[in-house]
Amino acid sequence: MIATRSAIFDEALEIAGRRFKSRLIVGTGKYRSYEEMKAAHAASGAEIVTVAVRRVPLDRRVESFLDHLDPKLMILPNTAGCYTVEEAVRTARLAREALGTNWIKLEVIGDQTTLFPDNEQTIEAARILVKEDFVVLPYVTDDLIVAKKLLDVGCAAVMPLAAPIGSGLGVQNPTNLRILREQLPDAILIVDAGVGTASDAAIAMELGADAVLMNTAIAEAQHPEQMARAMRLAVEAGRLAYLAGRMPKRLYASASSPLAGVIR
Amino acid sequence: MIATRSAIFDEALEIAGRRFKSRLIVGTGKYRSYEEMKAAHAASGAEIVTVAVRRVPLDRRVESFLDHLDPKLMILPNTAGCYTVEEAVRTARLAREALGTNWIKLEVIGDQTTLFPDNEQTIEAARILVKEDFVVLPYVTDDLIVAKKLLDVGCAAVMPLAAPIGSGLGVQNPTNLRILREQLPDAILIVDAGVGTASDAAIAMELGADAVLMNTAIAEAQHPEQMARAMRLAVEAGRLAYLAGRMPKRLYASASSPLAGVIR
Amino acid sequence: MIATRSAIFDEALEIAGRRFKSRLIVGTGKYRSYEEMKAAHAASGAEIVTVAVRRVPLDRRVESFLDHLDPKLMILPNTAGCYTVEEAVRTARLAREALGTNWIKLEVIGDQTTLFPDNEQTIEAARILVKEDFVVLPYVTDDLIVAKKLLDVGCAAVMPLAAPIGSGLGVQNPTNLRILREQLPDAILIVDAGVGTASDAAIAMELGADAVLMNTAIAEAQHPEQMARAMRLAVEAGRLAYLAGRMPKRLYASASSPLAGVIR
Amino acid sequence: MIATRSAIFDEALEIAGRRFKSRLIVGTGKYRSYEEMKAAHAASGAEIVTVAVRRVPLDRRVESFLDHLDPKLMILPNTAGCYTVEEAVRTARLAREALGTNWIKLEVIGDQTTLFPDNEQTIEAARILVKEDFVVLPYVTDDLIVAKKLLDVGCAAVMPLAAPIGSGLGVQNPTNLRILREQLPDAILIVDAGVGTASDAAIAMELGADAVLMNTAIAEAQHPEQMARAMRLAVEAGRLAYLAGRMPKRLYASASSPLAGVIR
Repeated sequence: MIATRSAIFDEALEIAGRRFKSRLIVGTGKYRSYEEMKAAHAASGAEIVTVAVRRVPLDRRVESFLDHLDPKLMILPNTAGCYTVEEAVRTARLAREALGTNWIKLEVIGDQTTLFPDNEQTIEAARILVKEDFVVLPYVTDDLIVAKKLLDVGCAAVMPLAAPIGSGLGVQNPTNLRILREQLPDAILIVDAGVGTASDAAIAMELGADAVLMNTAIAEAQHPEQMARAMRLAVEAGRLAYLAGRMPKRLYASASSPLAGVIR
Repeated sequence: MIATRSAIFDEALEIAGRRFKSRLIVGTGKYRSYEEMKAAHAASGAEIVTVAVRRVPLDRRVESFLDHLDPKLMILPNTAGCYTVEEAVRTARLAREALGTNWIKLEVIGDQTTLFPDNEQTIEAARILVKEDFVVLPYVTDDLIVAKKLLDVGCAAVMPLAAPIGSGLGVQNPTNLRILREQLPDAILIVDAGVGTASDAAIAMELGADAVLMNTAIAEAQHPEQMARAMRLAVEAGRLAYLAGRMPKRLYASASSPLAGVIR
Repeated sequence: MIATRSAIFDEALEIAGRRFKSRLIVGTGKYRSYEEMKAAHAASGAEIVTVAVRRVPLDRRVESFLDHLDPKLMILPNTAGCYTVEEAVRTARLAREALGTNWIKLEVIGDQTTLFPDNEQTIEAARILVKEDFVVLPYVTDDLIVAKKLLDVGCAAVMPLAAPIGSGLGVQNPTNLRILREQLPDAILIVDAGVGTASDAAIAMELGADAVLMNTAIAEAQHPEQMARAMRLAVEAGRLAYLAGRMPKRLYASASSPLAGVIR
Repeated sequence: MIATRSAIFDEALEIAGRRFKSRLIVGTGKYRSYEEMKAAHAASGAEIVTVAVRRVPLDRRVESFLDHLDPKLMILPNTAGCYTVEEAVRTARLAREALGTNWIKLEVIGDQTTLFPDNEQTIEAARILVKEDFVVLPYVTDDLIVAKKLLDVGCAAVMPLAAPIGSGLGVQNPTNLRILREQLPDAILIVDAGVGTASDAAIAMELGADAVLMNTAIAEAQHPEQMARAMRLAVEAGRLAYLAGRMPKRLYASASSPLAGVIR
């Protein structure tokens, strides 16, 4: 039996056995108010929200952003601010206890200025956490070799950056994302960090990403709620365009030769 | 009294006194079947469809694509295939009679290979047609000076190209579109021609376009219906992102200096 | 008899019967001192320097930048600051008398803010000046149809802009320059305005331009003399690369399929 | 005492105590003939040529490309084709014996299709080779964290790729190269792999690279000798432009506001 066309276009995102309709994952930082955060989350249609474990109050009786999250949202704790394997592993374990989830967005940061990941340590931490039955989603550069190692270690997805965290520059290296998709057809690829506006998210999806995670692009927009809605639509648009199969590029309509090696 | 936020984001597109909810205008050419065209039109959410007058049968009793258009769609006839002022003017008049509308998408083509517009003749034809009470929407290059002249002549909008017709290259000169928006804040700008995929449409809208017109990007996609839906979402996403006010770009989150003259 | 390879690579630039070794044309504005201008001119290797007629003192006994130009440089007067056919024609005639040359870089500006050309008026002025035996080099947008008309009228070359004058943005629309070269294989194309750094000049030449004209990129560099030398080398590099025939682009070395419609 | 301007612009490239005038490093593969290779090497002005140790015949009495290298060229052996630390280290030692040099361009490849480096293994191999008194120049991705580790281990330079080997795509991620330069102001950065034409080399140098290494872009050009000369000029042009300090970018000459977060 062949999949019908509608089946192709209806498919859900599946990570570690869980299914999601939304392909947009959002954050909780940098909002001007809890109000604004809640409205943006609702407008985004996201089903997953990522939360820095370091910002979670140990004493949960203290009011925090956690109390302002829609209870329907799945919380994906992250190890932002961790610079070593040990810190990251310890933080993941803490998250499991405090938040009751074995999912972890793994970040092992290599540099305070750029917040680029230390891929080597990330692989090491992933290896440990997978053995402890975590569902590990690691933040990495757009590096095919690193992605392969993380998948070999048992990560549920890989999360390559589009550009530096908080830069808003959009996809800086479409070639690398395209190669990741082409060489890892069965992996879950979630573009993480660097999206600045709606078209950036659409581009990431058109390159074959399975989902996009963002925080600053929504939280620092002048109108976060509307930008969240823009992002929701852009992610859907990019996904649909990827599946719909775009027309070829030509220099002009009647051009007979392809543009290989021609167009910059 | 100040406009409320919701008012800002709810606004309709108004051209020559008519209001439209959709900011996507579609075409009728290159579809594999009438079925596919109809499905794509419906999925696009478009309220306006452009039709080449030259393709309209003189004897309307003959079956043609016109019989397969949703009657709710407003038909915008175009003068595609006209190479002189005379041809274009004559074709517009013919359209008025045959289709019962004084709206005309004015095309005076300057070159058979690229289908680039002859702006000079376009201005001349626009002058004549405006005097004859046509609502003129001219297809032009992304040229501020030409756009100003067309508005001075009384055109209802200007339709700068993003890239050559049928090329699918996307916005080739964002600088020119940005300048058009900045220098003509009150004009209706409809990006016409050159869009290839969803992110291209989003980019055009983020640059401040009021609407986008496309044909090949939908008709020549592998799955036109799904691409039409992608385009609908992308146009909405781009519009929302434009209104929502994107975050600034930085080299990285902690970068203190702006990127002026820095980022390519 | 076939041209030998060395012949191909040695060729001079010929405009209106005059031959030039250098393909870089420079300006005289915005320098911090005459010293700096002279040093930059020498380092650029340029044989042609463009001069705004409006800046030439009527009384040539008054000291001006003209007294600081290397006498070996051919002066190409320009009609910068003219907004109508009449002004431009009058200024060209004035230049012929004052500077003893029938060469004119024709500028009819359409907008004070962007300094974009008014192509329509430029064609009209060119028509008049060609009839008066001027060698006309018009500044225009990157518009194929306009370029054809200017060549039909008898212009010796066309000078499409890379980006707005003084913007330093580099080639904004490589597609349009590529199309100009492809559709007008025998025309002299001189990219004028918008170059910001050396690679911009190389890109213009790689797209098939016959020469590049620039002013601000050199005069407003921190070290104009060194930037002038950089530009000289970049123009030569770009020209050579164009003639040498670049390798095709591929997604990676072993990629078998071309990149048409694939790479952004 | 302050450095004079001429001193600034005369500076040589210094790697591990050796000084070079040329900032272009070339390869020996893919040429159609030894003749063509020799002519291209001469035209490039390169002082260093890289040689795959695997292609060096064990019996040096057998004729090979080595016999066709200009004796003035310094040979930089590389470990192309090595997929593990062990292979790479063994190959480097072999090179030292066979070619009498302790310089090694270290490549530990992670994937046969893309030829992307395995950064993790590269760091490990570098650590071993530095201890054995090799001058190690490692091929890596454009990854700041990896570059820092390689410098900490004692590498003489780092060689980030511009794009996949043999792709000819040019600098795919200018942001990453800019960040490498900004965060590692004292390191020797040699852009390696991915250059396709002259402007690509100029762009790499304008981003602050100290040198550029290329092979396919020259060897697979239609006229390798002329492309080699183009590359020589482009590298010099880019270096000079970097040192000369480019003008700022603006939307147009009279634009008062910077382009931060505005220009794509």
